[in-house]
Amino acid sequence: MIYLDNAASTPVHQKVIDEMMPYFKEQYGNPSSIHKFGRTANVALQNARKRAADLINADSKEILLTSGGTESNNTAIYGITFQNKGKHIITSSIEHDAILEPCKRLEREGYRISYLPVDRHGLVNVDDIKKEISQDTCLITIMFANNEVGTIQPIKEISGIAHDNNIVFHTDAVQAVGKVPIDVKELGVDLLSISSHKINGPKGVGALYLKKGIKISPLILGGGQENGLRSGTENVASIVGFGMACKLAKENINQNTDYFKNLTSQLITRVLLEIPETSLNGHSEKRIPNNTHFTFLGVNGEDLIIKLDENQIAASTGSACSVRIQKASHVLNAMGFSHEQISGSLRLTVGITNTAEEIDKTVEVLKKVVQELRAVSPYKNKYNF
Amino acid sequence: MIYLDNAASTPVHQKVIDEMMPYFKEQYGNPSSIHKFGRTANVALQNARKRAADLINADSKEILLTSGGTESNNTAIYGITFQNKGKHIITSSIEHDAILEPCKRLEREGYRISYLPVDRHGLVNVDDIKKEISQDTCLITIMFANNEVGTIQPIKEISGIAHDNNIVFHTDAVQAVGKVPIDVKELGVDLLSISSHKINGPKGVGALYLKKGIKISPLILGGGQENGLRSGTENVASIVGFGMACKLAKENINQNTDYFKNLTSQLITRVLLEIPETSLNGHSEKRIPNNTHFTFLGVNGEDLIIKLDENQIAASTGSACSVRIQKASHVLNAMGFSHEQISGSLRLTVGITNTAEEIDKTVEVLKKVVQELRAVSPYKNKYNF
Repeated sequence: MIYLDNAASTPVHQKVIDEMMPYFKEQYGNPSSIHKFGRTANVALQNARKRAADLINADSKEILLTSGGTESNNTAIYGITFQNKGKHIITSSIEHDAILEPCKRLEREGYRISYLPVDRHGLVNVDDIKKEISQDTCLITIMFANNEVGTIQPIKEISGIAHDNNIVFHTDAVQAVGKVPIDVKELGVDLLSISSHKINGPKGVGALYLKKGIKISPLILGGGQENGLRSGTENVASIVGFGMACKLAKENINQNTDYFKNLTSQLITRVLLEIPETSLNGHSEKRIPNNTHFTFLGVNGEDLIIKLDENQIAASTGSACSVRIQKASHVLNAMGFSHEQISGSLRLTVGITNTAEEIDKTVEVLKKVVQELRAVSPYKNKYNF
Repeated sequence: MIYLDNAASTPVHQKVIDEMMPYFKEQYGNPSSIHKFGRTANVALQNARKRAADLINADSKEILLTSGGTESNNTAIYGITFQNKGKHIITSSIEHDAILEPCKRLEREGYRISYLPVDRHGLVNVDDIKKEISQDTCLITIMFANNEVGTIQPIKEISGIAHDNNIVFHTDAVQAVGKVPIDVKELGVDLLSISSHKINGPKGVGALYLKKGIKISPLILGGGQENGLRSGTENVASIVGFGMACKLAKENINQNTDYFKNLTSQLITRVLLEIPETSLNGHSEKRIPNNTHFTFLGVNGEDLIIKLDENQIAASTGSACSVRIQKASHVLNAMGFSHEQISGSLRLTVGITNTAEEIDKTVEVLKKVVQELRAVSPYKNKYNF
């Protein structure tokens, strides 16, 4: 089976597994315990925290460990708004649901939310942000890279605008971490969300970067772990694995980026050349290197995925999270796509385990199945398939 | 090293590790993906959910998977109170901080909270519950078994009182699951919290039992996983491990209970007989079988733990979570203990990996170190040590 859904989740690196194992088997202490088992677990926790910090050029103390990207995003939004009752938030219309759903709830509770539009390529216009800022804007949250089409936003510029106006800036960097170099000091962001399982770490763990001086209220209360900002016994083994995944991501960033670029260039070039009535969605340059997102006119994306699956290729129409509820992509909708264009979309995201041979195989299968589906498409005559 | 801190965390069972491994290595799909990797992950998730349900005689649909006991408790409390703004909650004064801290926050937000007293043995008086119930009581949350002294509350009786008054009843059963048989149908509870790492499963995963018909608001919003009640990519490998831990806990409950009872009886008998000025805390019968909690008069518990640690024994004064902040136990305080009695307390909790030989060794070490500490105790003359 060829796995081309690395934006949904990634295989856990063998070195990550090896690093985790002792913390299941022998070092099962609770990091809060003062005996040797506890101290050993706590040291492991702090090492992992340092590795996560290093990946984004943060300080260890600025890393809040969570159960994943979604919790990190919720913690950022509720953490800031809890102390800013009823105020104003600026976000974009193409955020992940882990941003949009908390925003919608806050809206129902009386907060005011501005959902910025994006252009045809999924880019936010920074002038729109400036226009939306008001006296009571307490938070700007704009994703680093989109999970469907891969478009990278001008994070440093947005960060600057936020700070010129004394507004806290958060970015959901779940899809960007490990794909583009991220330096929080250089970017100047206040909060940044990371997920482990998108960078070949285990699921169920992530982090929220919290710039020194930024105060948030906790989402989950209890024993006071993570300086009182995230209670619950720390998920030691998974955190240790996450730490190793961060270390590997940092060490291999250039090599991985080049590798991803080569694979996606190969895929994009061949697909656009060899399959008619097909377009690449997202921005041509401002995109994460492992993402490709196509529209095959006249084809239903769900059917395409099933056909690909039958041919041993794992792909996605867009966000894995929204597949089951079968709603049309709010991202493509915001980008101005027609129903037909949205329907015919396919996301193929590469990872460290993919090979050039797999890409060639995928193109051959795609050519075949797209042709098969178009032969029975209701749009058959429109495009003269 | 002898590990006697199983209430803080437990070693992961080898069968649990074996069960998890494929979900790191080969089956790394996102359960929301519709391709084969995703479907395989989803099947594993549902199998694990069934195993967790079976452990407490619930239906699979009644199991909400979370990142652990603390999140389960927070989800229960906020999940019920979100739709009951400013109303009244009844809890006990000896709950875990994962209950007390959310309650304290709600209190600051205008909710009314009754913190019930307990007797010398840590038991809640059910008449106190009846007295506190008022028209606007929306939730009663009383722990199943206390994490420090092991006292088991009359859960079925409290559940009956709650339902006679149409009040939702939640119990934090983190320390009770796997130690006493739990049948949610027989007990009639509405919500019940479980933690994986207290029953030889991995850390970072747990569940909230949610009786059919009970409606809660989600704590974490996003992609809509867990029927919209807990968003975030499911922690597949850990959940699979948790499922196996539940299966083992169910299969071995009688055997484990007997085994724990034998070990703790041996420990309690020898300690009380061989070390003077020592008492067993908690209830003599209504206690989980793996818990022992002593007061050694004239001894400082923290010093005792350090001495035990030097002698290769891992123990605790009480809750692991509160060790680092060095606050006096709110549980023992509520039970009416003096500062001296609280200070001299030690919790030894056994698990499936402990042996009778380890217990004998522990008693010998305890005799030695208690004597050493008492020789330099400020209470030396008071007790004529």
